[in-house]
Amino acid sequence: MALKVVALAGGVGGAKLADGLAQAMPARDLTIVVNTGDDFDHLGLRICPDLDTMVYTLAGLADPRRGWGRADETWHFLEELGRLGGPVWFRLGDRDLALHAERTRRLGSGETLSEVTQHFCQILGVEARVLPMSDQPVETKVMTEDGRMPFEEYFVARKWKPVVKGFLFEGVEASSPAPGVLQAIQAADLVVLCPSNPWVSLDPILAVPGIREALHPRPVLGVSPIIGNQAVKGPAAKMFLEMGMEPTAYSAAAHFRDLLQGWVIDNQDGHLEERITELGVQVWVSDILMVDDRDRRRLGAEALRFGAELRSMEGM
Amino acid sequence: MALKVVALAGGVGGAKLADGLAQAMPARDLTIVVNTGDDFDHLGLRICPDLDTMVYTLAGLADPRRGWGRADETWHFLEELGRLGGPVWFRLGDRDLALHAERTRRLGSGETLSEVTQHFCQILGVEARVLPMSDQPVETKVMTEDGRMPFEEYFVARKWKPVVKGFLFEGVEASSPAPGVLQAIQAADLVVLCPSNPWVSLDPILAVPGIREALHPRPVLGVSPIIGNQAVKGPAAKMFLEMGMEPTAYSAAAHFRDLLQGWVIDNQDGHLEERITELGVQVWVSDILMVDDRDRRRLGAEALRFGAELRSMEGM
Repeated sequence: MALKVVALAGGVGGAKLADGLAQAMPARDLTIVVNTGDDFDHLGLRICPDLDTMVYTLAGLADPRRGWGRADETWHFLEELGRLGGPVWFRLGDRDLALHAERTRRLGSGETLSEVTQHFCQILGVEARVLPMSDQPVETKVMTEDGRMPFEEYFVARKWKPVVKGFLFEGVEASSPAPGVLQAIQAADLVVLCPSNPWVSLDPILAVPGIREALHPRPVLGVSPIIGNQAVKGPAAKMFLEMGMEPTAYSAAAHFRDLLQGWVIDNQDGHLEERITELGVQVWVSDILMVDDRDRRRLGAEALRFGAELRSMEGM
Repeated sequence: MALKVVALAGGVGGAKLADGLAQAMPARDLTIVVNTGDDFDHLGLRICPDLDTMVYTLAGLADPRRGWGRADETWHFLEELGRLGGPVWFRLGDRDLALHAERTRRLGSGETLSEVTQHFCQILGVEARVLPMSDQPVETKVMTEDGRMPFEEYFVARKWKPVVKGFLFEGVEASSPAPGVLQAIQAADLVVLCPSNPWVSLDPILAVPGIREALHPRPVLGVSPIIGNQAVKGPAAKMFLEMGMEPTAYSAAAHFRDLLQGWVIDNQDGHLEERITELGVQVWVSDILMVDDRDRRRLGAEALRFGAELRSMEGM
């Protein structure tokens, strides 16, 4: 019997696990709710970094080394923009640019972000259902010792160097989940928190009114975005430290303790199992670093097996 | 003694002669006033086809075969845009796109079109002074048997097939010449009407309040955009026919009769010399088809010699 699964995800790690899930189960039974707090306007284009990474990854178009953007990309636009004195801090490839231009055009003609995303998924052959967390704009602001700044400025332009003091999801109170998000969660047999940054990828999704509440009755498991004392990619570990916590798989589990039934950690973090269990969270220990496509599929399958165990333990 | 020259120009032919003039005289003494009636918004970008053709041509970046756009161009953006269901009727190359994006960004931050154009010329090493006819938007509309349409729709999307009935330069009454245009004309020893479409490239410039008046005391010569019964490129000949006139170098001269002292026609149109002279316009007969760079330079030099003759005939 196929489980209906909802995955919550942000950037590169989240996209990899979502892709693993989509390969390990019937993709049509998988709904992926994606962070849109990083979305921003740049050169007149509406750019949705996490949605794009997700769609490119599921479509098999993502660059396997960089994680973001497209494989088989060229950079003539950006080269020329630099020559003309334009802003090149956000790296826009020639092919990638078309996605932003067409999204901007469709949004301008009245389509919602959900509709545009669905259109892209259809054209690019993505079978899993990809939903933005909300069709309304929510802007993640990072409070740092250098002041408050939009996420992409912090992340790309400032290379996540500023010391963080907190996070703000502007507009989130007035936002609502995109059509289908709550229904998918309510119908889900399992919810998976992908290995995405807890502070700036998953928290924005959980802050959209109604989503956290809808999760509570579901079995929820997560895969740690921290291995050892490091994030596989990006500032998650640095953020835990700067927020006054040890950067470990334990801290990441504790961050979501009120939601979690299960937490997947890496073999090298096996010593944290007991502490995490004390949070009331079941632990699955495995190799969670996703280097290649096979890793994704294996970890996706393990997450599904763990989910089935959690469900049987709870008698669901 | 170097003449100060102002050239009025539109598309590809105009850019070629302007380039010839810039090579045949000290480029810093040449001011080129460019049609902006074709400018339009597309995919959120402000696109100025004639200014771009001029700047690319003078910078040595223009594609020598197509005439528009850049040599050494790639088309990955457009390929992908087509795949995503976006509009591909207007051909945007990857490098070319950077110019539009950076112009749009600068206009959005408050710069004028003149300032943006000057910036591009400086960066791309264009020595002649390139001015838009106006910093205010003027929109050329083509009245056709299929209704009224913006120029780029008529020209690119509809491939200049609709039968024209007239032309409208929306916004032109409220526009004013860009800074420096009137001063350059008033200081000019010679004004050259480049071989551009009379109806949709030169007429819009002449319709900007103040420009036609400023030209009257100057010696003005033009180079015919028609050779035999054909335009070298584009719909000029077809337009003359549809407006009820024979498509000849004579008709084009007659179109500007109130402004012209001299008119340069092709060898194969030598039989029209007498009729044109009867308009009160001196004629220079030469080979006016500009195939290569040498042709441009030669024709530019001939135009300057003809201008000097006209000045001495009028005792200037």
